[in-house]
Amino acid sequence: MADYDLVIIGSGPAGMTAAIYAVRADLSVLMLDRLAPGGKIINTNEIQNYPGVGTISGADLAIQMFQHTQELNVPFDYKTVKEVRVGEDGVKTILCEEEGAVYTAHAVILCTGTDSRTLGVPGEDSYIGNGISFCAICDGAACKGKDVVVLGGGNSAVEEAVYLAGMAESVTVAVRSCLKADPAACDKLRSLENVTVLEGWNAAEFYGDGSLKGVRLKEVSTGEERSLDCAKVFEYIGQIPATDCFQNLGVLNEAGYVEADAMMRTRVPGIFAAGDCVVKNLRQVVTACADGAIAAQSAAHYIQNL
Amino acid sequence: MADYDLVIIGSGPAGMTAAIYAVRADLSVLMLDRLAPGGKIINTNEIQNYPGVGTISGADLAIQMFQHTQELNVPFDYKTVKEVRVGEDGVKTILCEEEGAVYTAHAVILCTGTDSRTLGVPGEDSYIGNGISFCAICDGAACKGKDVVVLGGGNSAVEEAVYLAGMAESVTVAVRSCLKADPAACDKLRSLENVTVLEGWNAAEFYGDGSLKGVRLKEVSTGEERSLDCAKVFEYIGQIPATDCFQNLGVLNEAGYVEADAMMRTRVPGIFAAGDCVVKNLRQVVTACADGAIAAQSAAHYIQNL
Repeated sequence: MADYDLVIIGSGPAGMTAAIYAVRADLSVLMLDRLAPGGKIINTNEIQNYPGVGTISGADLAIQMFQHTQELNVPFDYKTVKEVRVGEDGVKTILCEEEGAVYTAHAVILCTGTDSRTLGVPGEDSYIGNGISFCAICDGAACKGKDVVVLGGGNSAVEEAVYLAGMAESVTVAVRSCLKADPAACDKLRSLENVTVLEGWNAAEFYGDGSLKGVRLKEVSTGEERSLDCAKVFEYIGQIPATDCFQNLGVLNEAGYVEADAMMRTRVPGIFAAGDCVVKNLRQVVTACADGAIAAQSAAHYIQNL
Repeated sequence: MADYDLVIIGSGPAGMTAAIYAVRADLSVLMLDRLAPGGKIINTNEIQNYPGVGTISGADLAIQMFQHTQELNVPFDYKTVKEVRVGEDGVKTILCEEEGAVYTAHAVILCTGTDSRTLGVPGEDSYIGNGISFCAICDGAACKGKDVVVLGGGNSAVEEAVYLAGMAESVTVAVRSCLKADPAACDKLRSLENVTVLEGWNAAEFYGDGSLKGVRLKEVSTGEERSLDCAKVFEYIGQIPATDCFQNLGVLNEAGYVEADAMMRTRVPGIFAAGDCVVKNLRQVVTACADGAIAAQSAAHYIQNL
């Protein structure tokens, strides 16, 4: 016996969709999050690619999704999960940081998302979501005919810089060391006429007058500084999956992402995953939602067959 | 050279989402459909599991999604595609039934969905979407404490009957011949106390007074008739992928569904697929949308690297 059929850890679009599907499948559900429901979209200025909704602020979409869960009476609790243990009988125990907060469930969906790595330089906090973006697919469409800067030199940075070059007036890629993406992607980037690659340059400060006007760069070896005026800066210096509390489960890859199959099953029976914390190619609101729907159906199927 | 970067064939949730992502990636796009935009949801009475939207009629959600594409100026045309040909240079030619309607594109997304097979018996047309459903995951939540009937005996019928038994008061499964699902699924179904299986029974008529009240069954061998009062009938007698016009491409499986990988790429470079017509486990609005987003990004990537 367990307190719940299903505990959902994380309440971003993946977790909220999983909750909607699970309660409609008549499972008893608890959704936990250490922060307010919505996940990363809470801090997203504008979302234009969630189909059917048009242009909306991330905070408003988060509220609409949470209201949707509340119309279906999904219980939600602010809790910080510390560990998930799997008993010999298959029942999962979810232990939280908060005193006395321990829950048991037959199935668990892991959907804690990722945190974007940041630089920690002056001006960054002020312009995140207001000039600094972590997603070219999300915010690139607003850059037509404008000058943009990409920070980073890995595969994501280079691929998204190529993508941005197709619509921006100019793209400057600044990387602390050198480009480390796949050679073919680097060649493609360097071949584009409206792209400049600056290797050995750090971002030192973001400046503007309330909205971002540019980024001050500093050459690592010489200390030389230069200011790059631009409409937007895309930081691609790494995502950190928020999966530390799942390390004991043996479901993470080397980078900390959860490995799941097309049915969103991890290798542990009864443990499913959804959204940005999963190994995948495209991390968007609508793909996180689809993961959540699939994970909930797989969980329902698992529980029916216990 | 081609008329468009991308032609999207089909304008259901998958096609419309692909269009949203493609125009935001600055591709030149044309979306074609033989019918009004929206696909199968146009005939769906109520949708309660598209996250963030709450409870909405399928027609309204279709309109909202189409408006979203129109805010982004996606060109749409009513055309019935007859064939897609791939030239030696990789350019795709889309031939339509309508005279003179021929388009060329670098990439194509196939998202023509499926048609639900129906019985063609009296009363069926009147109660489809109003008592007769083709989707237990969509409409099962409205069946709590009610008597329902499932028609069919394949894997979908049996699995969805098990799912419905978890919330309905009773489930009667009627199948013309006998249960043909996997033995484990059949055993599970037969073990449930609130399930009755009727093998060798045909549905002969749907009755009601504007809303469905039940189904009249006829035993195939004896001609014996009986009326089953119920709140909802779920028809699981087969889906037909609307992919006849893609047969020459060599991308279909034996059942006619399009085979695509996790990036929604078919085995033909530059031909992608999305939504219900693809081989997959869960066919929902939000999963179709996610496919469309992924297919459009893959198409953008393909075109950038031409």
